[in-house]
Amino acid sequence: MAGELDTLAINTIRVVAADIVQKANSGHPGAPMGCAPMAHLLWGTFMNYNPRDPKWLNRDRFVLSNGHACALQYLMLNLSGYDVPMSELQRFRQIGSITPGHPEAGITPGVEVSTGPLGQGISNAVGMALAESHLAAVYNKPDFTLFDNFTYVICGDGCLQEGVSSEACSIAGHLQLGHLIVLYDDNHITIDGDTNLSFTEDVLKRYEAYGWHVQAVAEGDTNLVGLKSAIEAAQKDPRPSIIKVRTIIGYGSGQQGHHKIHGSPLGAADIAETKKRMGFNPDQSFFVPDDVRAFYGRRAAAGAERQQAWNELRAKYARAYSKEAADLARREAGELPADLLSKLPKYGADAKPLATRQLGELTLNALAGDVTDLVGGSADLNPSTLTYIKASGDYQSGTPAGRNIRFGVREHGMAAICNGMAAYGAIRPYCSTFLNFIEYCFPSVRLSALSHFPVIYVMTHDSIGLGEDGPTHQPIEAIPLMRATPHLNVWRPADGNEVNAAYVSALRQHKIPSVLCLSRQAMPHIAASSLDDALRGAYVAVKETAALQIVLVGTGSEVSVAVEAAKAFGAGARVVSMPCREEFLRQDKAYRDSVLPVGIASLAVEAAATSGWTDVVHYAHGINRFGASAPAPDVFKDCKLTAGDVVETAKKLVARFPAGSAPVLGPL
Amino acid sequence: MAGELDTLAINTIRVVAADIVQKANSGHPGAPMGCAPMAHLLWGTFMNYNPRDPKWLNRDRFVLSNGHACALQYLMLNLSGYDVPMSELQRFRQIGSITPGHPEAGITPGVEVSTGPLGQGISNAVGMALAESHLAAVYNKPDFTLFDNFTYVICGDGCLQEGVSSEACSIAGHLQLGHLIVLYDDNHITIDGDTNLSFTEDVLKRYEAYGWHVQAVAEGDTNLVGLKSAIEAAQKDPRPSIIKVRTIIGYGSGQQGHHKIHGSPLGAADIAETKKRMGFNPDQSFFVPDDVRAFYGRRAAAGAERQQAWNELRAKYARAYSKEAADLARREAGELPADLLSKLPKYGADAKPLATRQLGELTLNALAGDVTDLVGGSADLNPSTLTYIKASGDYQSGTPAGRNIRFGVREHGMAAICNGMAAYGAIRPYCSTFLNFIEYCFPSVRLSALSHFPVIYVMTHDSIGLGEDGPTHQPIEAIPLMRATPHLNVWRPADGNEVNAAYVSALRQHKIPSVLCLSRQAMPHIAASSLDDALRGAYVAVKETAALQIVLVGTGSEVSVAVEAAKAFGAGARVVSMPCREEFLRQDKAYRDSVLPVGIASLAVEAAATSGWTDVVHYAHGINRFGASAPAPDVFKDCKLTAGDVVETAKKLVARFPAGSAPVLGPL
Ligand SMILES: [Ca+2]
Ligand SMILES: [Ca+2]
Repeated sequence: MAGELDTLAINTIRVVAADIVQKANSGHPGAPMGCAPMAHLLWGTFMNYNPRDPKWLNRDRFVLSNGHACALQYLMLNLSGYDVPMSELQRFRQIGSITPGHPEAGITPGVEVSTGPLGQGISNAVGMALAESHLAAVYNKPDFTLFDNFTYVICGDGCLQEGVSSEACSIAGHLQLGHLIVLYDDNHITIDGDTNLSFTEDVLKRYEAYGWHVQAVAEGDTNLVGLKSAIEAAQKDPRPSIIKVRTIIGYGSGQQGHHKIHGSPLGAADIAETKKRMGFNPDQSFFVPDDVRAFYGRRAAAGAERQQAWNELRAKYARAYSKEAADLARREAGELPADLLSKLPKYGADAKPLATRQLGELTLNALAGDVTDLVGGSADLNPSTLTYIKASGDYQSGTPAGRNIRFGVREHGMAAICNGMAAYGAIRPYCSTFLNFIEYCFPSVRLSALSHFPVIYVMTHDSIGLGEDGPTHQPIEAIPLMRATPHLNVWRPADGNEVNAAYVSALRQHKIPSVLCLSRQAMPHIAASSLDDALRGAYVAVKETAALQIVLVGTGSEVSVAVEAAKAFGAGARVVSMPCREEFLRQDKAYRDSVLPVGIASLAVEAAATSGWTDVVHYAHGINRFGASAPAPDVFKDCKLTAGDVVETAKKLVARFPAGSAPVLGPL
Repeated sequence: MAGELDTLAINTIRVVAADIVQKANSGHPGAPMGCAPMAHLLWGTFMNYNPRDPKWLNRDRFVLSNGHACALQYLMLNLSGYDVPMSELQRFRQIGSITPGHPEAGITPGVEVSTGPLGQGISNAVGMALAESHLAAVYNKPDFTLFDNFTYVICGDGCLQEGVSSEACSIAGHLQLGHLIVLYDDNHITIDGDTNLSFTEDVLKRYEAYGWHVQAVAEGDTNLVGLKSAIEAAQKDPRPSIIKVRTIIGYGSGQQGHHKIHGSPLGAADIAETKKRMGFNPDQSFFVPDDVRAFYGRRAAAGAERQQAWNELRAKYARAYSKEAADLARREAGELPADLLSKLPKYGADAKPLATRQLGELTLNALAGDVTDLVGGSADLNPSTLTYIKASGDYQSGTPAGRNIRFGVREHGMAAICNGMAAYGAIRPYCSTFLNFIEYCFPSVRLSALSHFPVIYVMTHDSIGLGEDGPTHQPIEAIPLMRATPHLNVWRPADGNEVNAAYVSALRQHKIPSVLCLSRQAMPHIAASSLDDALRGAYVAVKETAALQIVLVGTGSEVSVAVEAAKAFGAGARVVSMPCREEFLRQDKAYRDSVLPVGIASLAVEAAATSGWTDVVHYAHGINRFGASAPAPDVFKDCKLTAGDVVETAKKLVARFPAGSAPVLGPL
């Protein structure tokens, strides 16, 4: 059912993918061999892309959700003319190569998102399709279709078993993201063996229940015609589409259909036999026939032409809709409006006590008018997290220009969707839930950090201060978790100026995601606070009035506890507010020493597990237990986090390290 | 459609639940009022329970998956005669009460699991139903039906949107857990407003796709007859059953049907009007009519009789099947076989290098023959995590006596199911995946800790040492996360004796879950290791041979790096192996000081983020970045985690803190 050139190309993909894994002596040959026909159809027939400009805004997106099959993706990028040379395919899974063991965004041209942790890619793709539909609604005009790309996914059983994909695909159905097309590689094989061992649900029926358009293609190893017509139908159908493609893992090899082929090289003998059967020279590795190269070369040229036409359309658009075009250009470049800071809420010395989630609502809404790229929402907690952009409405299938996404009670899907929107470009996604439930979506937060997606996580109810909801809702280990994660800024602001700084810093990041930890409860304004000081990550909030004995370092709602404790301790106590430890540690030594003077005992005060603090201060007063269910002041007492408790610790610490004797901390 | 007494009881439940929330001035009245008919039917008609013995092994289990509705659960426990007095209902959400803001296992008699974090309860229930079917298969005999209880769940929309429940319910369908009955409170309301905002999928169709038995009941606020016959049908059907019950949130109140009633007290005026409409005295609060008390009193008496009959059956069973009865009694008491230690694999000084996951396979299989309560499996990673109990077979619907559960690629569901099995009793659940993917299930791990369920998490591929799979699979922040979590033992053993200790310690816990971090790669045996030393959490692995200058503290695969570094450093270096920091910190000061002498610089060496170490040692050499994809030795080099790198850090640390000058660490 496939033409001669198609067959040649598909078999080339199969054997070179096997070569890649064999040379590395590590990796997964089975899925690349089984998925070769789908990949050939996508890159060879359906997808619009220009390998010379992997960031073309209206390119079709491709996500390999079963990231372990990445030998396939790297090979397709090579064939299609991306800057992924054969020499890098030969350095698969080696140090410093652009062909790591699972795809990582930012490493390899043409790789959109980091996949491998199962379920993430397909969920990212939901975000990409959402981004496309939103940008189309905002920017397309009659005769100016700037955005109409498709997002294609290849995934396996594993991705569809993961809860994150259930969440994301349920919302994709609700939102009717018609430009999302998923090819499900149904090979009946998992690592353990046959899918009958654990995965016997009716997948297509489930997706139909989500509101998807579902199709099945039999004999996907050879049935190109069937595959092609299914993809065409998917393009036309207004719903998100999933196509179940029955394949044989490792098709064409001697071990086809066996689960051992999932994660181990074929071995030289099987590869040689496979090549022979397919008409290749068994002595040649990494061999691509000229006809195949020429075929993909023509596709690359066609893609370049298509982008050229789009560029011309966009130039014409810029003349007809100069304001929209300028805004889109700013957003694509990741720039902020020039006068952003002037829009921030102002707080005088007598600003009234508010919860930082309320202050966050003020800042978000003050900025969102100009920062049109802010698009996001909460996991069914808008009345609590206060993250609704009031200047816009709901994003729904009938109102795709709305900037407020109702994610439902789906934290993990929400975060993965935000990664997808960030990957798409021209959108600065944010999302929101209670801080404790960042653990529901942390695998996606980690991938924001690894992938350099500057997603903004607005996490409220950030401590035992949430009170009555109790230990199941009170974060303890969440803040240490986030601070231990590379490439992640963790903000815990204490007042309006610090909340402003948190949002400004988060928006200025191009490569680092930020978590904003905001309180449920009100807290007093810090007289000495300012945007600039807060942006440095830490600053002196209350200066000592006698010889310095101790520095109390508070974050968020515990800055006011520290202020009270300092008063009770005496004139030799200083209070430092440290809304962002990561930013503080990026300051120069002179500034750091001016805040935390050498030789002086320092004590952190934070309503969270103390783990991690003693890299920066000499001791930490926190909560190394689960919280309690009661009104917040009672919980603070129960957890020994009152000013009196802090003073007691401070005195003991000064006894351990009298002024001048506190040891040096920090990097050797 | 309800009799007079039923109506009285249901209305009593509605108004007293509202009273409970009103008195606390905090909580969720809407769901308790809407779910009152279901609750009355379950406690009043269907469930077998004995309030005098909340731990009766064959009791029906009840899980309130929408834990925020717990005013309902506490009230039902009070009515049913559990030791949950009215005075505690009046201390709802107050410090020290047994009625916290969300249900917590171990606090309130009759509360089986901790719920509130959405999706967990229904997933725990899958584990409970699995446990029942397994124990029935293992222990029931002709004429001796020791196990045949049902597990009932009430849940709301939120629980069904969460990915964890999708995972657990998919596997429940695969396993055909026929004794699981879920009542889905379909009130069309979420925190944000109408479910139309975000949740429009066809839930019953989805559950049908999972292989469940699905039913819908209209007018669930009044239609007791319909509800009753649906539950009867669910009991008879061999599949897990979900019954969608259409209700009105806050039914009976003036604000019924509105989303604001979800999370705020009704207010005194609305409560008074509601009571009047229902025929109660509006001036009376927490009032239960005598007829209602009497009705539930009869149910309690019937339950006590039923347990008495069961106790007699069990006594007869003990005579007929003494071996099985003794094993069951041991398991129910949480005891270990007396001669357990003699079964452990023995390792001589010349034991050959193996990966700790391989050593783990040896220990698990050496113990599993006698510790028949070990039941578990992996998230489709048996060939990698090596956690299959070879003496048993698969747990499948046709083979429920099997002890190996094929969880599929469903980490979060897996962990939640293990919590449910632990809650059931007489089972010591374990589960397994790659360490990095503990983040996929961490909300459930946290609930193991909070709920005191001693689940054993066997997490392999525990560092950059997994090599080629790369940064998406290499844990960095996972170990700091776990160590920051209260009530959790984190083991990272370095050889066979330490792996033995990890399993022995984990099995000895009655209230603390354990995570065993095991390596992909082989590592040498530690000549000085022993079970007893390892059980102390840390011990001297290589003693210094000159005046002590520095202590290198390794864990897991980095003990051998520390040994090599110590050699290169010189005679003044000591190596400590610290497989479990939590156990070490529980030792007395004399022992701790003998391992880490006062005044001597100590340096941790661990292939993980360094966060948290400086509470115990003076500095940590680790990895505060993401890893890399390459063969393991290359990744260790790239991450600067070779012996040479450690020696460099050690020298700098000794320069900072020469012998005798290192500062005091630890609690003030
Ligand atoms: Ca479609
Ligand atoms: Ca059933």
